[in-house]
Amino acid sequence: MGGIPAVKVDEKIRVSEIFGPTIQGEGALIGVPTVFVRTGGCDYRCRWCDSLHAVDSEYRESWKAFTSQEVIDEISRLSGGVPLMVSLSGGNPAIQPLGGLIELGHAKGYRFALETQGSVARRWFADLDLLVLSPKPPSSGMETDWGLLQDCRNAAQGTDTILKVVVFDEADYAYAREVAKRHHDLPMYLQPGNHTPPPPDDDKAVVDQNGIDERMRWLVDRVTADKWFEARVLPQLHVMLWGNKRGV
Amino acid sequence: MGGIPAVKVDEKIRVSEIFGPTIQGEGALIGVPTVFVRTGGCDYRCRWCDSLHAVDSEYRESWKAFTSQEVIDEISRLSGGVPLMVSLSGGNPAIQPLGGLIELGHAKGYRFALETQGSVARRWFADLDLLVLSPKPPSSGMETDWGLLQDCRNAAQGTDTILKVVVFDEADYAYAREVAKRHHDLPMYLQPGNHTPPPPDDDKAVVDQNGIDERMRWLVDRVTADKWFEARVLPQLHVMLWGNKRGV
Repeated sequence: MGGIPAVKVDEKIRVSEIFGPTIQGEGALIGVPTVFVRTGGCDYRCRWCDSLHAVDSEYRESWKAFTSQEVIDEISRLSGGVPLMVSLSGGNPAIQPLGGLIELGHAKGYRFALETQGSVARRWFADLDLLVLSPKPPSSGMETDWGLLQDCRNAAQGTDTILKVVVFDEADYAYAREVAKRHHDLPMYLQPGNHTPPPPDDDKAVVDQNGIDERMRWLVDRVTADKWFEARVLPQLHVMLWGNKRGV
Repeated sequence: MGGIPAVKVDEKIRVSEIFGPTIQGEGALIGVPTVFVRTGGCDYRCRWCDSLHAVDSEYRESWKAFTSQEVIDEISRLSGGVPLMVSLSGGNPAIQPLGGLIELGHAKGYRFALETQGSVARRWFADLDLLVLSPKPPSSGMETDWGLLQDCRNAAQGTDTILKVVVFDEADYAYAREVAKRHHDLPMYLQPGNHTPPPPDDDKAVVDQNGIDERMRWLVDRVTADKWFEARVLPQLHVMLWGNKRGV
């Protein structure tokens, strides 16, 4: 009797946007029909962040505090009540209380992937269907705390976990190799960076897709020349198809 | 003593081209560094075939007869002897004697995926690491023999098997749904068709990527509107990145 519950289900989640279904554009679940829950707030400030509207506190008045039930109700409305993959992204969704949402959603057949830089570990990572650890390379201006990244892995326990590293240049590539060396047992996804991320208030801003494609081809050459055949190289498909438009 | 060997290892394989490593551009292994072995000859004549140089007998003088050992030697040369994924495609690679190649490659650590329309079943499908069954929709002008497709599944036994259907229009989409209904236990990948496939002798021919992207967006809308959330929608990434250029 008594004891402290692991998850306070009535804790509010700060939500920047909920949208979909559309396809996942990146990483291990590329092409999978998905509803996205983008939470507001981040402990990082990456130079090339493509979701500043969910990061910068300047935009916090656009974030709404939702209960887990309210989030699942919105997901359910968007999906017509048919279970599908839900992607929890941000910002850094790990700083939000998402354990209750995952529990509620699982009971209805929804699955949950979470993408985080790996700077905050949560007990409920173990309840996810997929944990995407996306530590940030030198071009982001951030420093990786390898201990915290390991904590995230440990928290995930048996949950499928993959690595995704955004690569802009040689220094980023060397960083990705270092990540893979430290976590050689995890699948590694490499993704060419977008040097034309959208300004937070203009989703019609032009993307230099040719430049990104050029970086993607370079990355493929780099990986194959190194015989790094365990790495997987994938673009941001949604940017290729929809540019910086939001909600797709 | 005696008995007929299941695989005659000295049988020759008709090869159109061997190239790579590059990344797999389609389906379940999208983004995976891969060497491609494209065999020559096909029992189908799809209207929109993008590999006519490996299909039409007009080009057969460009195909070479290789032993399994010669093929594995070439793969090994291209990959610097480092094992990776090998994609067996065509034409229809199922009409070639590939059992010996798979056996030789496995002994060196290579893995093998094979892509076929599912019109010819082989005992050695069971030795693959992935079988991609890509039955052809109405726009191809071909008719699916559902019994033969089932025979291919049966031959694969425990081997991972997925479905991939190219979709040009509503009729193709309805066909994909029919395939999924008949094989609801297999993962389904949908791929927008390329209405500007390369002429066999001109790999600089222009691709209407905008038109293909438009079809891709339509397909995503179609799938999500139908709440067909088990389907996965992926483009031909290599066409997006390299157009109709060969060898990438």
